[in-house]
Amino acid sequence: VSLRFDTVSFLSDYGRSDEFVGVVTSVIVDMAPGVRVIDLTHDVAPFDVRAGSLALARAIPYVPRGVVLAVVDPGVGTSRRCIAVEVAGGEGVFVGPDNGLLAAGVALTGGAERAVSLDRVEFHLESPGATFAGRDVFAPVVARLCLGVDLAELGTLIDPAGILPGVVPLPREESGALIVEVTWVDRFGNCQLNVSPEDVASWGRVVRVVLDDPVGGQPLVRAVPVVSTFAEIGTGLGLVVDSCGMLALAADRRSAAAELGLGAGTGVRLEPGGSSDGVDVRLGPPRVRE
Amino acid sequence: VSLRFDTVSFLSDYGRSDEFVGVVTSVIVDMAPGVRVIDLTHDVAPFDVRAGSLALARAIPYVPRGVVLAVVDPGVGTSRRCIAVEVAGGEGVFVGPDNGLLAAGVALTGGAERAVSLDRVEFHLESPGATFAGRDVFAPVVARLCLGVDLAELGTLIDPAGILPGVVPLPREESGALIVEVTWVDRFGNCQLNVSPEDVASWGRVVRVVLDDPVGGQPLVRAVPVVSTFAEIGTGLGLVVDSCGMLALAADRRSAAAELGLGAGTGVRLEPGGSSDGVDVRLGPPRVRE
Amino acid sequence: VSLRFDTVSFLSDYGRSDEFVGVVTSVIVDMAPGVRVIDLTHDVAPFDVRAGSLALARAIPYVPRGVVLAVVDPGVGTSRRCIAVEVAGGEGVFVGPDNGLLAAGVALTGGAERAVSLDRVEFHLESPGATFAGRDVFAPVVARLCLGVDLAELGTLIDPAGILPGVVPLPREESGALIVEVTWVDRFGNCQLNVSPEDVASWGRVVRVVLDDPVGGQPLVRAVPVVSTFAEIGTGLGLVVDSCGMLALAADRRSAAAELGLGAGTGVRLEPGGSSDGVDVRLGPPRVRE
Repeated sequence: VSLRFDTVSFLSDYGRSDEFVGVVTSVIVDMAPGVRVIDLTHDVAPFDVRAGSLALARAIPYVPRGVVLAVVDPGVGTSRRCIAVEVAGGEGVFVGPDNGLLAAGVALTGGAERAVSLDRVEFHLESPGATFAGRDVFAPVVARLCLGVDLAELGTLIDPAGILPGVVPLPREESGALIVEVTWVDRFGNCQLNVSPEDVASWGRVVRVVLDDPVGGQPLVRAVPVVSTFAEIGTGLGLVVDSCGMLALAADRRSAAAELGLGAGTGVRLEPGGSSDGVDVRLGPPRVRE
Repeated sequence: VSLRFDTVSFLSDYGRSDEFVGVVTSVIVDMAPGVRVIDLTHDVAPFDVRAGSLALARAIPYVPRGVVLAVVDPGVGTSRRCIAVEVAGGEGVFVGPDNGLLAAGVALTGGAERAVSLDRVEFHLESPGATFAGRDVFAPVVARLCLGVDLAELGTLIDPAGILPGVVPLPREESGALIVEVTWVDRFGNCQLNVSPEDVASWGRVVRVVLDDPVGGQPLVRAVPVVSTFAEIGTGLGLVVDSCGMLALAADRRSAAAELGLGAGTGVRLEPGGSSDGVDVRLGPPRVRE
Repeated sequence: VSLRFDTVSFLSDYGRSDEFVGVVTSVIVDMAPGVRVIDLTHDVAPFDVRAGSLALARAIPYVPRGVVLAVVDPGVGTSRRCIAVEVAGGEGVFVGPDNGLLAAGVALTGGAERAVSLDRVEFHLESPGATFAGRDVFAPVVARLCLGVDLAELGTLIDPAGILPGVVPLPREESGALIVEVTWVDRFGNCQLNVSPEDVASWGRVVRVVLDDPVGGQPLVRAVPVVSTFAEIGTGLGLVVDSCGMLALAADRRSAAAELGLGAGTGVRLEPGGSSDGVDVRLGPPRVRE
């Protein structure tokens, strides 16, 4: 079979403990046998559209030409739309729910050029229940896109401007400090912040990290170095320039998230660093777990 | 190489924390290079033949033509047989232990037509130990099936009627109520029951769910709606028609299993619903966690 | 595209909860589209080079001809070298950090024949940060190896003898006993020891297992049988000849690791078994959990 797309990059909150991912993959390759499915991740926290959106955005610069299937879909079966969005002169198509999940990925590839609401049920699987759109709606549509069916045949064309935007948290200034947020805690406990090295470049190589309300702890202040590798951090904490080019609060071979009780969404205050010796500084109260 | 089957759908309780799945896959594709291996799931609870059997049954309507390899095998290395079972006029072959794991899947594809006991060791890998039949027995047999070796060459033909059946829990009636069971708790905490919407259709749109002995709690009675989507449930609980067409005790964007302390195998009583307003009703004792 | 290698076997400590594995895979197949990536495992404990090395060694006899990519890399971004090591007359190439991770795998395939330090940055991806060598250094090098680029073009040739060796724990004798170590606890709780059946063959079919300092417990002595299958163990513990041909302290359908509080690295003393009846023997103190 000649294919228009031979690669599907697949992200979801399905986990791997059930057969969901295997079934969606089965439907796709059964209809479009030559297609390769790359699993980006399926361990997005259940229902966490924002986390899924951010993981998709981090991966998208590296995924091959083809279809991107993303499913984090707490509104499955309701009136939220299922959509397909064409980008990059037809070199890529995003497929998923219209709930903000796809927005950042679409934007990073140049923005939506055409979009459809996937409302032509003759392209879906007949189903005994409405709770598994990945299997019944998205997978058969993805397969048909790979086989060369044009986007416009799969549903009603919609205004790309009407697609639900994602919510991207922005840092804000407050009397010389930056109020930022943990956007992602990775497997190693590194805490990505929504701030880049450029944003704090004028402060020098040391930044004060303030946690006003750490989980189960006293307010915490640390002066930490801005570094390029985990090893430079030494025994304390550091702000490492991570693989996305953002600052991540990190420790060397230990979990900064576990030590500080941080999770996605936790607020963090950054201030120009007083001391420049890279040594940890703490004000007053006893340190939290370390 | 010309292949008789180019797809292997693979389910097990191997988990992904060890290299078991990767090694089995390596053996298959090393012997039969063009084959695609679809991972259905490998996170069946260790030794849980029934859970594996049910996951296989849920997936099987969607897997492509080819070989189905299923391994949940607490009796590995003992006299329990390793078998291969041909179905659907030769369009599919199930491979795995003869311990009930394959039964439901085989039945859903029309029943066993030919079967062999995989007792021809010349088709197995030589092995330093007898504990990894997936690698040493099943994988090389799967590869040879893909390469076109006939079932009958791989072992001794056995009577398909002698294959160990699966144990499928059936609901039973008791003075107007249905005594059912949780067959599966998925990643999102939805609790599939062994009962379909048709079984309670005469009761109307509200069903009383009775847990006589919830984990760490008082008996619990709830009147819940029968619905098609999670969103219709609202803030309480509901019985949603799930993607298999069964009723699942569920909550909207929360885990019903965690709230009620339910797991696979928990017994549940269903009764015709008294109130029809869809509001939760509770008799007497304080509610369990919510 | 004609490929020199069409298979990449991939092991890491990236986990699957983030998109790391998907991104590395994306980079490889985007550059070398026909390549198949086999995931050996990605759940090596974070930073645990030894555990990764052992998992790789267990898998390596079964992986197909091609490239082996292994990444457990706590020193990412520092002066530790990134290397590629050719083995088996060019039939295989190992790619990863030079920190001991690759050593056992390389040795099992006959030893390093050529090796390079991956210092030619024109073959790497440009990157906003130095923390993700899997994506930026290893993946593009792996792709080029698959496409036929010679090892020597990818970096500076180094002396294979200078590659960091792995640390393999060896058993030692002590007044007639063997002091061994748990090398691996698998998903089922089986505890592989660094000792083979041959090492205790002269002791007969019963071995005394002594835990001098179990987690949270009293010293423990058990006389256990040496067996070939889990089922032969019965209700107690046994030393089963595992799939690598090593002895593993195991229980039948239960987790020996959980019962005894064992983990990788725990020391265990083996002594000739006094009683030969296979019954558990305990000296003095109450048994730990069972």
